Order: sequence, then structure tokens, then C-alpha cells
Amino acid sequence: MFEKVIDPRMSETDRAGHINNTVIPVWFESGRDEIFKLFTPDLSLDDWKMVIINFNVDFVNQLYYGKQVTVKTWIKDIGNTSLKIYEEIHQGGYICARGSAIYVNYNFKEGKTERIPDEIRKKLAEHLYSE
Amino acid sequence: MFEKVIDPRMSETDRAGHINNTVIPVWFESGRDEIFKLFTPDLSLDDWKMVIINFNVDFVNQLYYGKQVTVKTWIKDIGNTSLKIYEEIHQGGYICARGSAIYVNYNFKEGKTERIPDEIRKKLAEHLYSE
Amino acid sequence: MFEKVIDPRMSETDRAGHINNTVIPVWFESGRDEIFKLFTPDLSLDDWKMVIINFNVDFVNQLYYGKQVTVKTWIKDIGNTSLKIYEEIHQGGYICARGSAIYVNYNFKEGKTERIPDEIRKKLAEHLYSE
Amino acid sequence: MFEKVIDPRMSETDRAGHINNTVIPVWFESGRDEIFKLFTPDLSLDDWKMVIINFNVDFVNQLYYGKQVTVKTWIKDIGNTSLKIYEEIHQGGYICARGSAIYVNYNFKEGKTERIPDEIRKKLAEHLYSE
Repeated sequence: MFEKVIDPRMSETDRAGHINNTVIPVWFESGRDEIFKLFTPDLSLDDWKMVIINFNVDFVNQLYYGKQVTVKTWIKDIGNTSLKIYEEIHQGGYICARGSAIYVNYNFKEGKTERIPDEIRKKLAEHLYSE
Repeated sequence: MFEKVIDPRMSETDRAGHINNTVIPVWFESGRDEIFKLFTPDLSLDDWKMVIINFNVDFVNQLYYGKQVTVKTWIKDIGNTSLKIYEEIHQGGYICARGSAIYVNYNFKEGKTERIPDEIRKKLAEHLYSE
Repeated sequence: MFEKVIDPRMSETDRAGHINNTVIPVWFESGRDEIFKLFTPDLSLDDWKMVIINFNVDFVNQLYYGKQVTVKTWIKDIGNTSLKIYEEIHQGGYICARGSAIYVNYNFKEGKTERIPDEIRKKLAEHLYSE
Repeated sequence: MFEKVIDPRMSETDRAGHINNTVIPVWFESGRDEIFKLFTPDLSLDDWKMVIINFNVDFVNQLYYGKQVTVKTWIKDIGNTSLKIYEEIHQGGYICARGSAIYVNYNFKEGKTERIPDEIRKKLAEHLYSE
């Protein structure tokens, strides 16, 4: 599991008093930083690989300004060219949001998806989700 | 169908050159303004009703800065206390993202979900999605 | 004067009930789109010119969700290589924020600032602010 | 000095390849969290005090995704009812942005500014900026 601690921001709340729902994908994407680095160690754009094709979020409990959150990120499925990520956001001992994201390993120079290389599969497998 | 035209912003792009994926839920939420007004005509917080419990987004084509997008919003399902919304974002003649969102009709004072009133159901039904 | 009408978004409010202060630079930048196009007509990155070096915002009145705002953008000063922009945001007949931004005309290939060309100066001059 | 470490986010970059300028006020506001807590220890809205009336940002060096930034926050001036904050953002040993923000101590119930209380002045004074 990858873990990232985030301070919620005043600017991320909305007039209903909680963190706005549109912030959750932002935190989840931030939680994927280490996965991006597995595919592109120097994060250079010339060698960027990961293209998102779907995400899904369940809102379970309200999130608040003033208390740190933890984003937990697991690998759910490693396909031939695609990757399914499972993610949770926790605050104050509660799970507040859970989601998934699907990426493909895309070669921008050749304009096509590519098999996820074995050495990356091995590293991803260390973070597999098990219920 | 509800329709909203949006100018993509430089700040909504990312270093990969396109609109960042986390912007799509922001545009979709903006497209739901007229639905929020059906439930809370004056948009006052004291009478706010709509609580999101899930959203899902498919990324179909890249979105770019420099060309207007249109957010199209339909009602997909009207449950007893919940509402399913179907949404699309179009740019330059292409569908670029499609998504859905599920809301419940929540009475914050009493702390419970409530049946969506008949007069709102009637108005929502005018925007039903049909394939 | 350049003018852009924007629908404030639920996600742009904060828990204090109004539009969060950090949204104002986002709207102001969006109001500068037509200026960016004067310098880079096709908005291509290969020919991008405008680099921001300062902005300043005065918050005059609260801004709210639910009512359109108008961003008004003027040219304040045209220097040799730099440009000063003056901007206002209006809602419901009130001025709510005013600001300025300073950009330089930067040649990224040669890594240096460049004199703003005469044909651009002429077009900018049509939008000069006069009190 | 107050200090906050932030992981820049992919979604905070723009198509020019760097962190978008509109993100800087977001990071600066996040850096003021401890100041907000001095005025409203439980961060409750019923007792919220701080209202921003101006901010100013100088962009000194580009900021990048992939490397942590540190937001440093000092008190510049303590007026009768107002407060001037001075702020810097550092990345990789360079100062990349500096700014200031002016807040007033506002009593929302009575609808007027109030003198900053002595016990808060004392705590603020521990974080005074000295060149």
C-alpha cells in the first residue's frame, strides 16, 4: 500500500461546510505519485506512460478542514496493458471515500498501448490489495 | 437536457498538455446547477437537499484549452429518495468524457433521506435520458 | 476592455459561505485568454510568450454562488518587454475584486525577454484603461 | 515562522509544464492554517475571525511537480484590527515565490472589525519577520 498524508485546505471546503466532492479525485491522483514514478522514474514528460480512462468514487462520510487525511492506494488488478487502482481516504479513524481508477500504459511516441513491463509488474505486485 | 458552455482555463490544463482529469468532476458539478435549483430554488444552505454518494467518469478523448466545451446533463433514474444523473462533455464535435452521479435527497434538519417530492419528480422527468 | 461572463461553481465556494479568495486569480487568468491569443494566436506552446511575474488582488465585496460574475480586463501599461493588466470582477452590480498582473514577453527558445512587437502593441492599446 | 511541506500535484501543473500561477495563493493560504487557529482555536465557523482584504505574489522561479515545496509564513505587521503576513515558497533550495496577505479581525455577529486581542498579539509576535 502507498500512503500519503494531506492537510485539507480551506479552499477545498465548500459552502455546505465540508470538503467539496470534486477534491477527492485530486487527493486520489496525488496518492498515485509513487505509481507514476514506477512507470516514469524521472517523471519526465518525454517518457510519460500513464493515461487514465476511468475513475469511480463512493462518498462514505463527510471530510472536514482542520484534520489531516490519509490517502491509501493499492493495486487492484494488473492487466496486459492496463492497471486498476483501488484507493481510500481516511480521516479521524473513519473511511470517508473509496474509489478506483483505471490507467493504460501508453507509448505516446508510437501512439499505442503497451504491455506493462515485467519489472514494473513485480513492483506493482508488492502493493496488491487483499480483502 | 441541461446544457452549460464552459471556457476551459489555462489553470485547468496539466503538464501533459490537456485538461487534467480531476477537472471533469468540477465541470460536471457545474452542469448540475439547474438540478440543485429544482431542489433548493434560492440555493440557500438552510434548505439544501442534495448529497452526492457516487460519481463515475469515463475518459473518452482528450480535452484542450482554447476551445469551448459543452456539458450536457440528463436525468437517468428517479428513485424514491435518490437521483441518478448522466452527463457528457463535448468539445469540437467529439464526446470527450461521460459520467454519472448519484445524489440523495437529504433533510439536514431531521438527519434523514426523504422521498423526492412529486412536483420535483415532474420537472426532473422533462430531462430524462433516452438512448 | 475584454469581458468574460463566468458561472461561479459550488466547488469554488468555501465553508465561510462565499467564493474562496484563491478562486479570484483563476477567474482573472481566464479573463486574460484574449490577451494570450494576441501574443500566441493559435495558443501553441511552441510559440508561447507570456510569463507572469506578479499579481495583486484587492477583495472589496464577497462573491457568491448562484449569480453570474463578469470579469473585466484592461491594459494598464505597455512597457518595452512587459505588460501590466488591470482587472475587475463584478457581481450583481457591485465590484467585488480588483487586481493587477504583470507579464513579460518571453522567448523560451532563446531564453530571454523580447520587446513587445508593434502590431501587438497597437491591438493592446485598444484596451487601455482610462479612469 | 510557520512552516508547511507540500507535495505539488500533477493537477496543479499546467500545459506550460510548471505549477500554474493560480496555485500559489492556494499553498499560501494552506500555510496560514496555524494563524487561523490562533484566532479560532477550534476552527469553528461560528467564531471565525479572519477576512482577507489583499494579497500580492511575486513569481521568482518556476515551481515543478515531483519535488516537495516548503511554505514559510511570517507575521510582517500587527495593526490595531489588521494583520500583514509575509510568505515564501521554496523548492530545491531556491525561493520560487514570495507574497503578502492582509487580513482583518472581523466579528461576523456584530458586523465590524475588532482590535486583535493582546493574547493573540503576543503569540503572533513570536513569528515576526526580520530581514
